[in-house]
Amino acid sequence: MMSRYDIAIIGTGPGGLEAAITAKLRNKDIILFGTKELSPKITKAVEIRNYLGLPSISGDGLAKAYTDHLEAMDIKINEARISAVYAMGDYFALQASGEMYEAKTIIISTGVVAGRPFPGEDENLGSGVSYCATCDAALYKGKEAVVIGYSKSKEEDALFLAENADKVTYVALYKDVSELADNIEVITGNVPKEIIREGDKMTLVTNKDRFTADGIFILRDVLSAEKLVPGLLMEDGHIAVGRDMSTNIEGVFACGDVTGKPYQYIKAAGEGNVAALSAISYLTVKR
Amino acid sequence: MMSRYDIAIIGTGPGGLEAAITAKLRNKDIILFGTKELSPKITKAVEIRNYLGLPSISGDGLAKAYTDHLEAMDIKINEARISAVYAMGDYFALQASGEMYEAKTIIISTGVVAGRPFPGEDENLGSGVSYCATCDAALYKGKEAVVIGYSKSKEEDALFLAENADKVTYVALYKDVSELADNIEVITGNVPKEIIREGDKMTLVTNKDRFTADGIFILRDVLSAEKLVPGLLMEDGHIAVGRDMSTNIEGVFACGDVTGKPYQYIKAAGEGNVAALSAISYLTVKR
Ligand SMILES: Cc1cc2nc3c(=O)[nH]c(=O)nc-3n(C[C@H](O)[C@H](O)[C@H](O)COP(=O)(O)OP(=O)(O)OC[C@H]3O[C@@H](n4cnc5c(N)ncnc54)[C@H](O)[C@@H]3O)c2cc1C
Ligand SMILES: Cc1cc2nc3c(=O)[nH]c(=O)nc-3n(C[C@H](O)[C@H](O)[C@H](O)COP(=O)(O)OP(=O)(O)OC[C@H]3O[C@@H](n4cnc5c(N)ncnc54)[C@H](O)[C@@H]3O)c2cc1C
Repeated sequence: MMSRYDIAIIGTGPGGLEAAITAKLRNKDIILFGTKELSPKITKAVEIRNYLGLPSISGDGLAKAYTDHLEAMDIKINEARISAVYAMGDYFALQASGEMYEAKTIIISTGVVAGRPFPGEDENLGSGVSYCATCDAALYKGKEAVVIGYSKSKEEDALFLAENADKVTYVALYKDVSELADNIEVITGNVPKEIIREGDKMTLVTNKDRFTADGIFILRDVLSAEKLVPGLLMEDGHIAVGRDMSTNIEGVFACGDVTGKPYQYIKAAGEGNVAALSAISYLTVKR
Repeated sequence: MMSRYDIAIIGTGPGGLEAAITAKLRNKDIILFGTKELSPKITKAVEIRNYLGLPSISGDGLAKAYTDHLEAMDIKINEARISAVYAMGDYFALQASGEMYEAKTIIISTGVVAGRPFPGEDENLGSGVSYCATCDAALYKGKEAVVIGYSKSKEEDALFLAENADKVTYVALYKDVSELADNIEVITGNVPKEIIREGDKMTLVTNKDRFTADGIFILRDVLSAEKLVPGLLMEDGHIAVGRDMSTNIEGVFACGDVTGKPYQYIKAAGEGNVAALSAISYLTVKR
């Protein structure tokens, strides 16, 4: 049987990490999703001076301090990318590329998403527009797809899709694209502008060109929270939370940039601590 | 002329300290009230494991990390004890023993007060019951006073009072009371229970005895926030705050244990960061 975790934490910025250590200290059975590099928002910082207790530290230094903390507490990071969280009644199902996880409570600490959806994106989501290549690849046997890849890590998804689809047009939004497969056409230097449905074909309009296929995959680094967790109440583009970091969905908590400004490390960490303790009291009351 | 600070921060726990470094980084003119030992809640901790980035640290170690941070940023601690904060229209007046300070905004991070007021305390506050020996000593010329001292640092207040009053009965709630003055009678091993007005005399009832005088001074380590700042809206014994750490009084912000549970270092620090940034935007809008 699939193990059902007490708390699934999505995101390895300061919010998710503090939630993880707080929950682990309380002997909760947790799973932490993110990347071993933790967060680009940590590693890219040059000098951090406002994290109380670590007077002047580089982003790499902070990442190292965090990693040491995880190691000291034997907390592992699961690198699966969560594409959706579904409320199943008394538990939640988390969907990742090809795998499912189950947890009794969820803490979302996925950071902020830069930018708005493209015109035509929201309307066609689920029929013509997809966020998860590995989830939907099987539907593309003998078909063609356009993929918008936001970072190098998306190439793997494009390759998997190309094993199923006849042709993949890969619109890369970063430099240094690797050699991909024969049936993948790599496009660089294009800025996506709009998505248009024409009959059962989908067209991606960029600043330079138009690419038409059976479907369009948008592979961003971070999914907006409302797309990650259907039904989540948002407020000005952020997850609406109370002072206890609870959301409108029972059992779902949030922390960090995803809950609103100010965007700051120690604010995210403080909220992660509160979110974990609230999830723990929720688990206690439910039991 | 008295200098008017941009932000006065009351309290040197993690909440007040993070507020101070955040405000100082934004070049605000701040004054930080508290003690050089920072907070007994920091130094008394044996091992702290949930402060992200400092894996396993003693309370003294955390205090050292905090002090280093203050030094690196050239932030000084003013050891005056604030006994009241008054809203004066477009600024605030802070009252300390014998001195006044002025600031455009206030951040309260005074921690939680253990215990409830004694029966008879609230009703007689201001006429028979006082919290500030140095403020009210002059009123006790030729009179007698009972003082409840919660810690050694209160002996100084008792001595000052005894320079004015004929007699002081000093009920010490701690061990190792020093030699005080000839006209101070030191009582130990008594637990205060109740305060009673009898005509214009006040009586302190303890588990063992009754002490009658012209007035009773209650010198706690921490004043409850509503007594510190008259008019502050409370909720279940804590300052009611929004997600931006604003209180019901414009220009007054709060952070840390004083705003509610959970009582945790990094929650307090995270809120201190938010309180400072909110005070700064308040200053910007007001200007
Ligand atoms: C260059 C730079 C400098 C900065 N300097 C400072 C500073 O000096 N002081 C300061 O206080 N703040 C600073 N910040 C802001 C700070 O970085 C952010 O406020 C903080 O990182 C927010 O933390 P978080 O926990 O909300 O999430 P983030 O740090 O944004 O991390 C979110 C994590 O979740 C992961 N994730 C997202 N979606 C999923 C998913 N579906 N499945 C699995 N994992 C997922 C992401 O990959 C990422 O690792 C800076 C930011 C930048 C970019
Ligand atoms: C023994 C112990 C162990 C703990 N262990 C942990 C732990 O492992 N992890 C964790 O997260 N939390 C722990 N805590 C809780 C943690 O200490 C508190 O949550 C935290 O200190 C709260 O910070 P704060 O900024 O709200 O205020 P405090 O730390 O309470 O500090 C308030 C400061 O304000 C000063 N002050 C108050 N009134 C005035 C005034 N009128 N004028 C001037 N100064 C004033 C006080 O003297 C004090 O210095 C522990 C607490 C204790 C007692």
